[in-house]
Amino acid sequence: MSQLKKALLGSIAPILLSGMLLAQAAPVSASGGQTNYARYTADNELLRPKNYREWVFIGASVTPNDLNDGSPAFPEFHNVYIDPASWAHWQETGEFRNGTVIVKELVSVGSTAAVSGNGYFPGEFNGIAAMVKDDKRFAERPENWAFFGFASYEARNGNIQADESCSSCHKENAGQDMIFTQYYPVLRDGKPGK
Amino acid sequence: MSQLKKALLGSIAPILLSGMLLAQAAPVSASGGQTNYARYTADNELLRPKNYREWVFIGASVTPNDLNDGSPAFPEFHNVYIDPASWAHWQETGEFRNGTVIVKELVSVGSTAAVSGNGYFPGEFNGIAAMVKDDKRFAERPENWAFFGFASYEARNGNIQADESCSSCHKENAGQDMIFTQYYPVLRDGKPGK
Repeated sequence: MSQLKKALLGSIAPILLSGMLLAQAAPVSASGGQTNYARYTADNELLRPKNYREWVFIGASVTPNDLNDGSPAFPEFHNVYIDPASWAHWQETGEFRNGTVIVKELVSVGSTAAVSGNGYFPGEFNGIAAMVKDDKRFAERPENWAFFGFASYEARNGNIQADESCSSCHKENAGQDMIFTQYYPVLRDGKPGK
Repeated sequence: MSQLKKALLGSIAPILLSGMLLAQAAPVSASGGQTNYARYTADNELLRPKNYREWVFIGASVTPNDLNDGSPAFPEFHNVYIDPASWAHWQETGEFRNGTVIVKELVSVGSTAAVSGNGYFPGEFNGIAAMVKDDKRFAERPENWAFFGFASYEARNGNIQADESCSSCHKENAGQDMIFTQYYPVLRDGKPGK
């Protein structure tokens, strides 16, 4: 992506920019090349990100019902994605840029045995949650990260965890800058100078 | 990159803009708009695909060692990706196009308990395997799919399963066209007229 961005700034920028818009349906700022994947309502609620399944997948943990007395905190598979511009920034700097959007999509366990063995196999989507880092909009939040649930996620979980609850757990336990990098080999491997 | 630029600057640029091709910096053929993610040695061995972690993730099953007497067929997480051009084709047609490349990346279980509960959490990369559909190159293979392992995958598993063994299991058990769509909600949800 970073190579592509360099090309974007060259003479073919106008052509490529429209291509990028189509590919990820991402807004591109007038300042040239910066992308912003977070859009908000007037009440500062994050709108459901578009096309996040085409972002960069960073890892999938599974906390199945049957290992958590039927009610894990986040049932069951957690497929986690980072927006492409923040992935490019991560590969260059090893940091989460201002504007990073992380989406966690929940997927039920569809099966616990298959021809490949015993285990856990994805079933159906259960909703998404997201976190966004923004040092202006969320200047007062820990490390400038805000946490959002969405209607489908709420329906699955019964209630959405309070932002403060998410923050404190991430702050205490996550590997880097409130992100659980210890469970995301894609991020670790993509980090410069790893 | 030079191939991409050449294509962009040529007369086929407007066609390319409509796809996801640019965002993934994929090789572009001279025939205009077709992308080919499979490259081979002179001996018809697939070269390790580049940047597959930026392709579209379709699902992650886990067959952990501790549920399979220490030796599952494919330890342990299987992160599965489809190339972007084939993803676009799938969304349009609900079929796997000629040229589709599917990569399965294996990841160890790094932990079985975390602050979010009991379960399975990704550890380190263990190698990749891939399958490619090509009705000319693999005209004799079932449904024109060929299966490939790679050195790192071999090192982890001891030996690479024979193509015939892979084929027969996929043919008998996979949901559609030898792909286990039953475990890939991203594919099911992306299918037209679902």
